[in-house]
Amino acid sequence: MADNSAQGQSKRPHVVIVGGGFGGLAAAKALAGAAVDITLIDKRNHHLFQPLLYQVATAGLSPADIAGSIRAILAAQANVRVLLDRVYGIDRVSQRVILGDGEPIAYDWLIIATGATHSYFGRDEWAPFAPGIKTIDDATAIRRRVLLALERAETETDPERRKALLTFVVVGGGPTGVEMAGAIAELARQSVSKDFRHITPHCSRIVLLQRGDRLLPSFPATLSAKALGGIEQLGVEVRLGADVKAIDANGVTVDDEFIPATTTIWAAGVMASRAAEWLGCTADRAGRVKIGADLHPAGDARIFVIGDTAACTDASGRDLPGVAPVAKQQGQYAARVIRAALVGRVVAPFRYRDWGNMATVGRSRAVADFGRVRVSGLPAWVLWCVAHIWFLTGHRNRIAVGLTWLGSYLTYQRGARLITGDIAPDLPATLELAPALGRRAVRPLDLAAVK
Amino acid sequence: MADNSAQGQSKRPHVVIVGGGFGGLAAAKALAGAAVDITLIDKRNHHLFQPLLYQVATAGLSPADIAGSIRAILAAQANVRVLLDRVYGIDRVSQRVILGDGEPIAYDWLIIATGATHSYFGRDEWAPFAPGIKTIDDATAIRRRVLLALERAETETDPERRKALLTFVVVGGGPTGVEMAGAIAELARQSVSKDFRHITPHCSRIVLLQRGDRLLPSFPATLSAKALGGIEQLGVEVRLGADVKAIDANGVTVDDEFIPATTTIWAAGVMASRAAEWLGCTADRAGRVKIGADLHPAGDARIFVIGDTAACTDASGRDLPGVAPVAKQQGQYAARVIRAALVGRVVAPFRYRDWGNMATVGRSRAVADFGRVRVSGLPAWVLWCVAHIWFLTGHRNRIAVGLTWLGSYLTYQRGARLITGDIAPDLPATLELAPALGRRAVRPLDLAAVK
Repeated sequence: MADNSAQGQSKRPHVVIVGGGFGGLAAAKALAGAAVDITLIDKRNHHLFQPLLYQVATAGLSPADIAGSIRAILAAQANVRVLLDRVYGIDRVSQRVILGDGEPIAYDWLIIATGATHSYFGRDEWAPFAPGIKTIDDATAIRRRVLLALERAETETDPERRKALLTFVVVGGGPTGVEMAGAIAELARQSVSKDFRHITPHCSRIVLLQRGDRLLPSFPATLSAKALGGIEQLGVEVRLGADVKAIDANGVTVDDEFIPATTTIWAAGVMASRAAEWLGCTADRAGRVKIGADLHPAGDARIFVIGDTAACTDASGRDLPGVAPVAKQQGQYAARVIRAALVGRVVAPFRYRDWGNMATVGRSRAVADFGRVRVSGLPAWVLWCVAHIWFLTGHRNRIAVGLTWLGSYLTYQRGARLITGDIAPDLPATLELAPALGRRAVRPLDLAAVK
Repeated sequence: MADNSAQGQSKRPHVVIVGGGFGGLAAAKALAGAAVDITLIDKRNHHLFQPLLYQVATAGLSPADIAGSIRAILAAQANVRVLLDRVYGIDRVSQRVILGDGEPIAYDWLIIATGATHSYFGRDEWAPFAPGIKTIDDATAIRRRVLLALERAETETDPERRKALLTFVVVGGGPTGVEMAGAIAELARQSVSKDFRHITPHCSRIVLLQRGDRLLPSFPATLSAKALGGIEQLGVEVRLGADVKAIDANGVTVDDEFIPATTTIWAAGVMASRAAEWLGCTADRAGRVKIGADLHPAGDARIFVIGDTAACTDASGRDLPGVAPVAKQQGQYAARVIRAALVGRVVAPFRYRDWGNMATVGRSRAVADFGRVRVSGLPAWVLWCVAHIWFLTGHRNRIAVGLTWLGSYLTYQRGARLITGDIAPDLPATLELAPALGRRAVRPLDLAAVK
């Protein structure tokens, strides 16, 4: 490749970063001005602010509000090139990354920041019935399902079928599940019910299933209790200790009960990307690569694995959580190590600095845990809004999200209620009504008279 | 259906409107408060402001900025219900509309406002290579193609192939074609080129093909000349009198020349929806139903056909253009006729009031024709911006589009540069690199060493 050879000539070490999420982007930015050439590879052209993805799925925000072109974000940084491609493997011996489209790329340092996807814990057959939410396409697909269920409920005359259309089950009681359930409750009960003639705020049923004995297990128990109270007040039915046994197109079987529901959303588990396979490492139960306090997988100081795809513990042996701040700090740390190596120095082991943890519980309510200080209710929600706007990438997105939230808060409206994709196929160009109508029994019509 | 019988009991006439575009929505709104029950049927849940769709296709605006839920738009109007369904036929004898999902619906008056789609003039085999732009899904698919072409050009080393990736052909020199070509020129030459390392403003080639002897044939010749000058200044290569002979994945054959291009966009022709088939009327060459000055198809005073799906002439026998104001005024006229009929009166025949005609030619330039007054350049562009924000549906969208345009104008950036959908398939879960890499010849690697 022209590029590789150019970089070869320049003799500057080549840092390859795989993944343009929080970790990869932080690493690239922290290497600005360093005497290295950087190639950032991502299979998507955009960086996504995943913490707000549930708002796209519930028609509150547009995809472009929470995503930005990776290329545009790094445009001003001269030592980076961005590559839209998919990584298929890593050859650690010849130090090359194997791509789907382009030629293999040689690296001097490799930073793997490929994140995680949802996991059905070995029940992949549930995937078509309970989509998870990790990408923009996931979010618009869920938005389509939720909005279509409401549309269909509006005209459904069979009461059982209608009830199933108006039942939304969210599996998983972590931050994503709680936020998703709260947002669906708001959408179905407050925002849209007045637009329908046959859906009142109380026809919709939102069920949140949590296997453990409390919501938000990564938060202190007092905040879990606050979140439970808040989400129940929004009308969400919470089931703790719920054992999901089956999911299909008609509903969810929990313990011994079948809940008829046409819309189920998966927020229960994540599985790391394939970095462990690429590296030939053993993965932990969540598919993550075990790394040390130097962020290297065992025995390879040329490679850093960071963010959701890495299993890293803090000084007390506790697993670091799969959140954006961990990924960012690890990305910055990897950059610091590389910068130090350029001048022959070493840096102290990585230490995660925990600034706190937040989750929203519907409109005007949140929980925030800053270690000794714990906040809940409206103050936590204001903090949550400010923090999320602050951490969004790009002024344009900050303004767009800020104004959209202000608008939604004042009007209770959702601005992005689009069902994309066709609801039914077009007929062939010639007029043959009768067979087309075979989809559903209709009373015989005098169609000849039409002609 | 529960609804139909309820409406039967109320004895209020039932107005069925098919289509929630400019015409259908105007008709529904103009019947607010009238003693009728209205059912508005659309196969999509949103009203779309089509004149700005090219900006979604070129990453300037988000889909939700120019679309709004039909249900939300009409929420406050008590005599309307909105139905998400697809119409498959009309039985004029029993006065019923045949639906894809629901039971047939009886009407007392029927307003058909189903618009138009693009037409390849009998060359439907061109459709996969030259997508047209009529829906949000069309627009995001074109956005994906344009952005992917730029991404692929960035890494392509074969000069011929690279040139084809950076060539964008727009077929059709009407307002949509001119606006599309101008927007692609801005996108490829100004907005994004600085984000790429190997794409400079002058590598991209944008070709606009027009069969006729001037652009914007619906405008006066002086404005066509202004548009030509403006679009050429943006770097668009305009070919007048161009006869497109073939289109495939590799490019476009015009007259006797083959233009290698991986991205071709169709803006050349429209074909009305299937209303003529539904009604058993003969359609004109563009598939439209011939209507009189009463907007009825011959001999059926219960049915109005309006907007792009109708062929209507003004007093001087000139065809009315397929633009939003015609559809809106016809929708309002149909409502007026129905209101008058309720009190036993008749109204004068429909007369189109032409307020003028505008088209943009890239950044800060437009043409506007108000009959005796003709404006071009920056003043016309300011008028164009103000008019389009004014006519957008909903305050939220007005604010969003206004601010986005202001931002783009100041920064030259495009805020919605998202490639959605995967760029390449995921590999199966087990590590089998060699066959997967068969997609492209790669040098042999010591893959065993990876494990």
